[in-house]
Amino acid sequence: MSTKQKNKTKKPLILVTNDDGVDAKGIRMLADTARQFGRVIMVAPSTGQSGKSHAITFNTPLRLRRIFYDPYFEIYKTNGTPTDAVKLAQRFLLRNEKIDLVISGINHGSNTATSTLYSGTVAAAMEGCINGLNAIAFSLCDYAHNCDFEAALLAAKKLIPMVLEKGLPPHTCLNVNIPNIPISEIKGFKITRQANNYWDEIIDERTDPMGRSYYWMSGDMLRVDKSRDTDEWAVSHKYISITPITTDLTAHNFINSFKEWKLKKDK
Amino acid sequence: MSTKQKNKTKKPLILVTNDDGVDAKGIRMLADTARQFGRVIMVAPSTGQSGKSHAITFNTPLRLRRIFYDPYFEIYKTNGTPTDAVKLAQRFLLRNEKIDLVISGINHGSNTATSTLYSGTVAAAMEGCINGLNAIAFSLCDYAHNCDFEAALLAAKKLIPMVLEKGLPPHTCLNVNIPNIPISEIKGFKITRQANNYWDEIIDERTDPMGRSYYWMSGDMLRVDKSRDTDEWAVSHKYISITPITTDLTAHNFINSFKEWKLKKDK
Repeated sequence: MSTKQKNKTKKPLILVTNDDGVDAKGIRMLADTARQFGRVIMVAPSTGQSGKSHAITFNTPLRLRRIFYDPYFEIYKTNGTPTDAVKLAQRFLLRNEKIDLVISGINHGSNTATSTLYSGTVAAAMEGCINGLNAIAFSLCDYAHNCDFEAALLAAKKLIPMVLEKGLPPHTCLNVNIPNIPISEIKGFKITRQANNYWDEIIDERTDPMGRSYYWMSGDMLRVDKSRDTDEWAVSHKYISITPITTDLTAHNFINSFKEWKLKKDK
Repeated sequence: MSTKQKNKTKKPLILVTNDDGVDAKGIRMLADTARQFGRVIMVAPSTGQSGKSHAITFNTPLRLRRIFYDPYFEIYKTNGTPTDAVKLAQRFLLRNEKIDLVISGINHGSNTATSTLYSGTVAAAMEGCINGLNAIAFSLCDYAHNCDFEAALLAAKKLIPMVLEKGLPPHTCLNVNIPNIPISEIKGFKITRQANNYWDEIIDERTDPMGRSYYWMSGDMLRVDKSRDTDEWAVSHKYISITPITTDLTAHNFINSFKEWKLKKDK
């Protein structure tokens, strides 16, 4: 068989990661589904990294270790963040191979609206995207450890082969949110935009045994954006939401009017 | 004096934060400059939080303490991230007051191209923006502790009063990068977009005294985007770069063609 033929028949290489850690149910279910479509390597944080956003580790050393007791999957765990996991996989473990797809999740909990920005799950997909790889983040709107991933796995089964086949535009990846309902109640897929909703934090002040204050941060999502084209509208109306997101943060639509400010070095 | 008159003459309230920590030279210089334009409160991480992106802390308690030995500024430090600092300031310390402007920096090091996504300095500005506040991130392209902030302070002196006066559009804040050159060599300001350049990481594998591997992550920016309208072009050509950035990650320009994929629940 020629090299060309070999490449043609080569199974796609799929990197699976998350922010809930290597032992979460969500990542195991996602990896198991992904195996239908290619060779799967899992590289994920050793422990939960929820809310770690796009954090990277360069001031302290990273660890990376294969889990040898798992005969079923090729699994590596790292003390780093989800973004570190993608970098370690791409630049170290798989540096001589082309990753065809990065999938992140299935997150235990939604990543809609501005939660997209805090999410380690979404950041891992964005990290793949930054490096020119196709990438999808999956999040189920249920924080329970042992939640029902059936509808989420349907989304994975639909999207993984489609993205492998069609590819995504440059600097673009997918943020998928799945409502926490039985698969029979799912109405379908909606392509959405990120809702302009944000968290109204509650800072709970407590006193430690030494008499010093400490604070727990929690909060509620302020649902100010009532539009029907958003991720939050979709999941609350029984649709699987797919938001294409970009790694280009430029506010392109403000550039022209901003130029009218006429900033000059000298007065 | 009526309440209305009082409000009219009230000094703007400016929150200053960063990711290099409360003792960095950059934040002190920025706060000192900001005092010309309003009442300044500094809430910043106790220690360096570079590369922490938009990480938030909700699984462990936060600390927040006023630095009493500083007679000059109202300064608070937190064990949290830059984003936590903004949340603690807005939702706890200043919960009964309107913050007129969040300024973050001056970062010791550039935050151009995809570094924008990893930056705690930029994330702090974005966090203000998410919550409806005007916000600016300042970064100097010099990692030294004792760098020359003169050109960066010029940018702050120009932008702080302009943003206070004109305001920024919803979901939009400014990412300002200042070249590491004497102020006399600065050619002016350029309004730019985020360059599509990204890091090519080098993973340096070492062995600890117990014989186990550990990894240091470093790398070089791959400058594949040669366009003259980018943040990186501007700073390398002696301009102060101002990139308007958005907290809406939606890839709006892909939505229509993505709809043609015609995803259906059932085959």
